[in-house]
Amino acid sequence: MMKGQKRIRDYGIIIGKMDTGEKNAITDVEGVKVGHVTLNDGAIKTGVTAILPHEDNLFKEKLVAASHVINGFGKTAGTIQIEELGTIETPIILTNTLSVGNAHAALVQYMLRHNEDIGVSTGTVNPIVCECNDGYLNDIRGMHVKKEHVFQALENTDKNFEEGAVGSGTGMSCYGLKGGIGTSSRLVKMGDEIFTIGILVMSNFGTKEDLTINGVKMGKMIVEKEKSRKPEEDKGSIIIILATDIPVTHRQLKRLCKRTAVGLSRTGSFWGNGSGDVVIGFTTANRIKHYEKEAVVSIKAFNENKINDIFRGVSEATEEAILNSLICADTTRGRDDHIRYSLKEYIDLITE
Amino acid sequence: MMKGQKRIRDYGIIIGKMDTGEKNAITDVEGVKVGHVTLNDGAIKTGVTAILPHEDNLFKEKLVAASHVINGFGKTAGTIQIEELGTIETPIILTNTLSVGNAHAALVQYMLRHNEDIGVSTGTVNPIVCECNDGYLNDIRGMHVKKEHVFQALENTDKNFEEGAVGSGTGMSCYGLKGGIGTSSRLVKMGDEIFTIGILVMSNFGTKEDLTINGVKMGKMIVEKEKSRKPEEDKGSIIIILATDIPVTHRQLKRLCKRTAVGLSRTGSFWGNGSGDVVIGFTTANRIKHYEKEAVVSIKAFNENKINDIFRGVSEATEEAILNSLICADTTRGRDDHIRYSLKEYIDLITE
Amino acid sequence: MMKGQKRIRDYGIIIGKMDTGEKNAITDVEGVKVGHVTLNDGAIKTGVTAILPHEDNLFKEKLVAASHVINGFGKTAGTIQIEELGTIETPIILTNTLSVGNAHAALVQYMLRHNEDIGVSTGTVNPIVCECNDGYLNDIRGMHVKKEHVFQALENTDKNFEEGAVGSGTGMSCYGLKGGIGTSSRLVKMGDEIFTIGILVMSNFGTKEDLTINGVKMGKMIVEKEKSRKPEEDKGSIIIILATDIPVTHRQLKRLCKRTAVGLSRTGSFWGNGSGDVVIGFTTANRIKHYEKEAVVSIKAFNENKINDIFRGVSEATEEAILNSLICADTTRGRDDHIRYSLKEYIDLITE
Amino acid sequence: MMKGQKRIRDYGIIIGKMDTGEKNAITDVEGVKVGHVTLNDGAIKTGVTAILPHEDNLFKEKLVAASHVINGFGKTAGTIQIEELGTIETPIILTNTLSVGNAHAALVQYMLRHNEDIGVSTGTVNPIVCECNDGYLNDIRGMHVKKEHVFQALENTDKNFEEGAVGSGTGMSCYGLKGGIGTSSRLVKMGDEIFTIGILVMSNFGTKEDLTINGVKMGKMIVEKEKSRKPEEDKGSIIIILATDIPVTHRQLKRLCKRTAVGLSRTGSFWGNGSGDVVIGFTTANRIKHYEKEAVVSIKAFNENKINDIFRGVSEATEEAILNSLICADTTRGRDDHIRYSLKEYIDLITE
Repeated sequence: MMKGQKRIRDYGIIIGKMDTGEKNAITDVEGVKVGHVTLNDGAIKTGVTAILPHEDNLFKEKLVAASHVINGFGKTAGTIQIEELGTIETPIILTNTLSVGNAHAALVQYMLRHNEDIGVSTGTVNPIVCECNDGYLNDIRGMHVKKEHVFQALENTDKNFEEGAVGSGTGMSCYGLKGGIGTSSRLVKMGDEIFTIGILVMSNFGTKEDLTINGVKMGKMIVEKEKSRKPEEDKGSIIIILATDIPVTHRQLKRLCKRTAVGLSRTGSFWGNGSGDVVIGFTTANRIKHYEKEAVVSIKAFNENKINDIFRGVSEATEEAILNSLICADTTRGRDDHIRYSLKEYIDLITE
Repeated sequence: MMKGQKRIRDYGIIIGKMDTGEKNAITDVEGVKVGHVTLNDGAIKTGVTAILPHEDNLFKEKLVAASHVINGFGKTAGTIQIEELGTIETPIILTNTLSVGNAHAALVQYMLRHNEDIGVSTGTVNPIVCECNDGYLNDIRGMHVKKEHVFQALENTDKNFEEGAVGSGTGMSCYGLKGGIGTSSRLVKMGDEIFTIGILVMSNFGTKEDLTINGVKMGKMIVEKEKSRKPEEDKGSIIIILATDIPVTHRQLKRLCKRTAVGLSRTGSFWGNGSGDVVIGFTTANRIKHYEKEAVVSIKAFNENKINDIFRGVSEATEEAILNSLICADTTRGRDDHIRYSLKEYIDLITE
Repeated sequence: MMKGQKRIRDYGIIIGKMDTGEKNAITDVEGVKVGHVTLNDGAIKTGVTAILPHEDNLFKEKLVAASHVINGFGKTAGTIQIEELGTIETPIILTNTLSVGNAHAALVQYMLRHNEDIGVSTGTVNPIVCECNDGYLNDIRGMHVKKEHVFQALENTDKNFEEGAVGSGTGMSCYGLKGGIGTSSRLVKMGDEIFTIGILVMSNFGTKEDLTINGVKMGKMIVEKEKSRKPEEDKGSIIIILATDIPVTHRQLKRLCKRTAVGLSRTGSFWGNGSGDVVIGFTTANRIKHYEKEAVVSIKAFNENKINDIFRGVSEATEEAILNSLICADTTRGRDDHIRYSLKEYIDLITE
Repeated sequence: MMKGQKRIRDYGIIIGKMDTGEKNAITDVEGVKVGHVTLNDGAIKTGVTAILPHEDNLFKEKLVAASHVINGFGKTAGTIQIEELGTIETPIILTNTLSVGNAHAALVQYMLRHNEDIGVSTGTVNPIVCECNDGYLNDIRGMHVKKEHVFQALENTDKNFEEGAVGSGTGMSCYGLKGGIGTSSRLVKMGDEIFTIGILVMSNFGTKEDLTINGVKMGKMIVEKEKSRKPEEDKGSIIIILATDIPVTHRQLKRLCKRTAVGLSRTGSFWGNGSGDVVIGFTTANRIKHYEKEAVVSIKAFNENKINDIFRGVSEATEEAILNSLICADTTRGRDDHIRYSLKEYIDLITE
């Protein structure tokens, strides 16, 4: 329990069979930190969440990375270069859809501040900014996320962080309930070594009736119980961040990223049309130096004959991270009296 | 009930909420027919299944098509051209992995026989051959599939066809049980019109403990019951054929193809490393003439704002087709006394 | 001659064999307009170029679109959604790499201003922002492009526009010379109809010695002549915008976009590692309504048997647009006394 | 001069500026061998060309590989698995389009013969078969390539091999002239090390008027000279095999494969609609063991900051290989008195 929040496991719901890391969080991966800035004031229900892949200079010590688009009704920035070069060189910023520009500009400034060479004696930098549309609860047209919120979220990064209606998850909706930020992790044992897979999601997708918890069609139960509330269309998105310390190449990491969609499917989603379902993955096990001198470098790869356990871990952690994003989120009333109820209000339907 | 076989619905297991077509089969799509040739003789446990997309000259009247690779440890032939031109121009042949060559040569001969212009006054032809590895039960090294089996399967095509351990599914294994051919369909209502989505699978993937039936983790129950049998690695593949009469473009059809992976995930698979999970989709609603004279042609597309029901239908039909492939397959003993039990032997674990 | 500038054809250099449109510009495509804002003040050598795909409400009347990444060392925003949905719904903004964020925020504001429904009663919007790194001449770290420059460029859009060191091309370098904005067009005759292909490039790539003009290895001649100047590495990028009134689907348009790389190759580039070579294409012939009511819509496609002339046209227009970007650009001295000479200073090496 | 044939360099035509390997052939890459079987008898003008990536057991010692589709009107088999796993595990077979099936079956048999475990105690095998349509000169409907021809081509593999109208190139046409097999290589110096890039093409594309030799539009000159001969449509394809001993990952190798399209463009092609332009690349520097025991393995990657020279080498070698395929091919009269003249008959147009 990172911040005293009751998580899905605390209700006796165990996803899969693999062990979790100590925190059951993306920050179980050595070096990874997460920080939030929450903007919650009347119709303003939004924010910023920052993921720091490691604590050194990311631009000078890039990490092997990959991305995957499950469904592309989304505006994530930075994936073209990830796919070409197989690396990330900045922290990852999550925010609302219409604030991608401000977050992008802020992340550039942050990188310039830490790297005097960018744009002068070396090339530019590729900022990674991901988004979901929190417009149901948030006055998204107000573009309330400013550069200082991004700087602050980066400064707030820590091994412990809150889940639910916090940071960029403040205004998000998921399965017709309150969504937001969730996380989980899995351990993979290989001989004497133990590797970690961490997942962080920003959940903002699905219709209520489709919610499935560990195989139980809970959404139908909720819909039956509350009868009066009107059905809503499947809109919105999910951003999935995959961190690991397993030594993998770009190609292998992309295979890992794809398996997040398995966990997503099992929570009830069929990857709706209006969804920007984007995955960004990185491994801390392979660093690529910006000023590498050698012509040939050695990188570590995983024996693909043994990769199935890792695929399983990615699926399990994603499923659990989504459920954590729901169960940790408090009921939220936003713009125009729009309201999203917390899964907490219904969870006894299946736990009793 | 196409051929008197008891299917998953007959056990009271209903996947999803949408209506099925009359046969609950891929052949509910007007014009689509399926035929088998089964080779079942001692260690020979293999065969051919042919899917005929329409009954006219396919080379002269191509259909809009798309493919999608869920996991690419597979040898399906023909997808490069499907992706470039967005059409198919031959029937689709399913067989075992090492017989792709013979099936390819046979399909070429079949096309040459029906088209005197190919290779003389017009270009060549792009045969579609899909495969899974039935080597656990079948003497796959024997390459027992010959050209005449392909011709025969094409001749056998019919609106009614068997499921389970038949045709190319004769030697396939799924979730450590007997797999093979399965099918299902869904209807989508749009105003006054009713459209059909049909799925046919050749299932050959997964480990026993992962089998999930409509959310119930049945695989665990089976493993507990039979204790003594040793665990096996997740290997093998699934071929998924999607047929529809919905007017869609290549791009839209590819989006449909991707949603088969949702249904696949819900049966318990995490798309294992050794799996060649390939989807081929086509729509009968848009024909492309080989000798088109006009410079500009009109094609019908679907309003993407309304596409969610179609996505749901694809997911539901795929999940049900996989379960049908299992429940219709009889226990099979193959080469070296290898055996795969039928799901029928365990189904009362969840239906009683 | 749109703005009195001497273009490559005016030197007797004719690329290919197809006819150009009236202006030999992207604006030969009905409805397309281009506008610049140039920031040229000491070390500030940058700007904004806006392309307006049509003159009605783009969000409500989207155009069929496609993108293609030739080499992905780039930060263009918006391609994920183009590829998923096959449409664009905003003007296209070109600027420098570190100003993508500001341009993105500005384009969002522009779209909100023209569409009261965005983010309230309908979804969000997908801004298209493309970039090259003008840091050799420009104080790119200064992030001098502000929102008002984007608004102004959009307001400046016109059928006639300048080429060379103007707008977002102000600080760009190409083949070690001064690059920037260039354009060209080709006509394709089909029966009684005449279609138009228009290309606009922002050129910022290549090393001097590689420059090839209509097959002549001019770069070598320049390098020999100027001996003393030191060689530079191949860095930078090219952005290519393809507009057409040919009725094509997303898939077909993507095939067109790929052929820009043919023209690019013929000017001497081998698509260097450090290059963000990104193509955005759209057709004005297929509009997709945001609030479409019908379930099935009719769209026009091109008979692919006749598409070769279009491929040729795309290649020719791209090659010529790049040469126009060079020959129209004046010698420019930027930050830290960095200088890029105009191709005009050398052109008599091959025209005399 | 491998086999006494006069190649394009022997006419004083030097492509690019980099050094070639000793043979100026794909077999300059250590371990690579090439073998032909030529079927030339009346209307039978076809054959098989085999490329052996290394001389040990390829299935047990796979090589890192990648593929790239320049234009996908083609039927090459095996690319799905190359892209998923990033390896090849068989020799590469080139033949005519309608003989892919027979070649596929033969390659399977060849692999079974050398590997008793395939299909019994381990999985199956992924044969790589590439093709072009030689139907203009060859009785392609006759399907004259048999399994024994494939076995023979594999047996014939050698460091020295013929170019032009030989092996699978026997019936191919290129730029309206006689095409076929061509090869070239480039050396890349990095510090004390010298690496080799080898290219082999099977050329079968383009229209006569488009042929460009080292920037000179020779096609136009030929067309003017021969006036009477009627124009033909751009059809056909090119297969490009890239071999190297540079240590690269799958992602990096794919980037190399893409650069073959630069060389292709410079010979005059715009990648016509009817072309199956497919590239298969492999590196001998990274072997992947089929029965790898370790969970983590070390692989060598190239420092991407220094990769530009390699890109240049790929482009140069491809351009030269295409020209070699033309200049080495003798005039050939095939089925129905169809004739393709050799470039040799025209080469003095530009060398005198």
